[in-house]
Amino acid sequence: MNSMNTRRTVRAYSSQPLSDQLLHDLITTACRASNTGNMQAYSIIVTRDMERKCILTPLHFNQTQVTQAPVVLTFCVDFNRFGKWCEQRKANPGYSNLQALTYATIDTVILAQAFCDAAEALGLGICYLGTTTYNAEQIAEVLELPKLVIPITTISVGYPQQTATTPLSDRLPLDGVIHQETYRDYTEDDIDRIFAEKEALPENQHFVEINKKETLAQIFTDIRYTKNDNEHFSEAYLKAIRKQGFII
Amino acid sequence: MNSMNTRRTVRAYSSQPLSDQLLHDLITTACRASNTGNMQAYSIIVTRDMERKCILTPLHFNQTQVTQAPVVLTFCVDFNRFGKWCEQRKANPGYSNLQALTYATIDTVILAQAFCDAAEALGLGICYLGTTTYNAEQIAEVLELPKLVIPITTISVGYPQQTATTPLSDRLPLDGVIHQETYRDYTEDDIDRIFAEKEALPENQHFVEINKKETLAQIFTDIRYTKNDNEHFSEAYLKAIRKQGFII
Repeated sequence: MNSMNTRRTVRAYSSQPLSDQLLHDLITTACRASNTGNMQAYSIIVTRDMERKCILTPLHFNQTQVTQAPVVLTFCVDFNRFGKWCEQRKANPGYSNLQALTYATIDTVILAQAFCDAAEALGLGICYLGTTTYNAEQIAEVLELPKLVIPITTISVGYPQQTATTPLSDRLPLDGVIHQETYRDYTEDDIDRIFAEKEALPENQHFVEINKKETLAQIFTDIRYTKNDNEHFSEAYLKAIRKQGFII
Repeated sequence: MNSMNTRRTVRAYSSQPLSDQLLHDLITTACRASNTGNMQAYSIIVTRDMERKCILTPLHFNQTQVTQAPVVLTFCVDFNRFGKWCEQRKANPGYSNLQALTYATIDTVILAQAFCDAAEALGLGICYLGTTTYNAEQIAEVLELPKLVIPITTISVGYPQQTATTPLSDRLPLDGVIHQETYRDYTEDDIDRIFAEKEALPENQHFVEINKKETLAQIFTDIRYTKNDNEHFSEAYLKAIRKQGFII
């Protein structure tokens, strides 16, 4: 648990290689985590080849850790394998729908996070690439994913370039995310209090200033996670889901 | 990592209470995990009250751990809190769409699994309730979730009734879930080999026999995760998503 409390996202990796043996041990551990009905409707695509990393990089908005990390792992929902098994065994699979996609997405993320917790406990560093569902169609093409396989999230992993000395990133106070028994909606005062620390951070105030915004919230809505971008990438993800054979 | 390699899902809990302090420490640890843009678009609803557990139980298909565990945690996507902050800060939130729901779902599951890994490292036992997205609309009502909050997964947690002595549940061989560089599709022989251990397990053969089925795959497609059920619960989940204010 200690490694979990002091963890930082790692975007710069040392040249120390990550062996296949260790990678496989970590994935074996991650597969011990829970999954729906023990169907294991997921696959992991391992990227080590620099040429392929270079093709993936723009699909991850040019985040440098794609080429800089020794290993990039793309965690995918996979009902292709399970469906093939069903068909070979005189069974009629029914997994090309939203509910199956949803529970397999949950299982895929459980697998990814179990991998991260195991890796960080051994001193490795990871970074999630949230760009995977933005460009799922193109990533599926690069990784040659068949129908009923769709990428959900990507992790870069390797040994950290140096021991992190930066402060831990901020988090909301605990009562900002926990509710007892039922959802207690937030008053204006609650919102002011819950976001106060985040708004007071010098780096966040600096962002607001250099971007000529009035508030930190505008950094999110106008620059980082805009309505337009979210809607554009909603369409793109829906298209990818349907192209991979899920009916929504 | 050791606790991760020997973990078992725990459905029966001892009477040893789980203190608020420990629960909060574990959630604090879990919140250290990665999340998209550090927006923390999630909430956890803590259920300890027996009356509410009894209301939740049928929504989780009468799984006994809902009432038997000292604590039930429902992990929800939450863009209500973040959206309220944006609106109080002259910013226009744009998070009622599929892409925002998707990345917040990923963040919510990362949080849930980080909680599980931290809890199990301290000797607690957990069980995921995959029924949450099946009955999301009704669970949202019981937990009084406002618009832009939707339940994604539920965990029961407590001290195990006894040290597990049952064998670990089976998992597919590692080459069944890993692909190098690109997806290598499965031949008939691959499928036979990958599922051989699962099919040979005495308890699985017993299931096939008592259910008068020809194959284990039919247990999944005809009884446990049928096309009809998946399609029914796809409609139900889509309805819940829309009722909570997400546009899909």
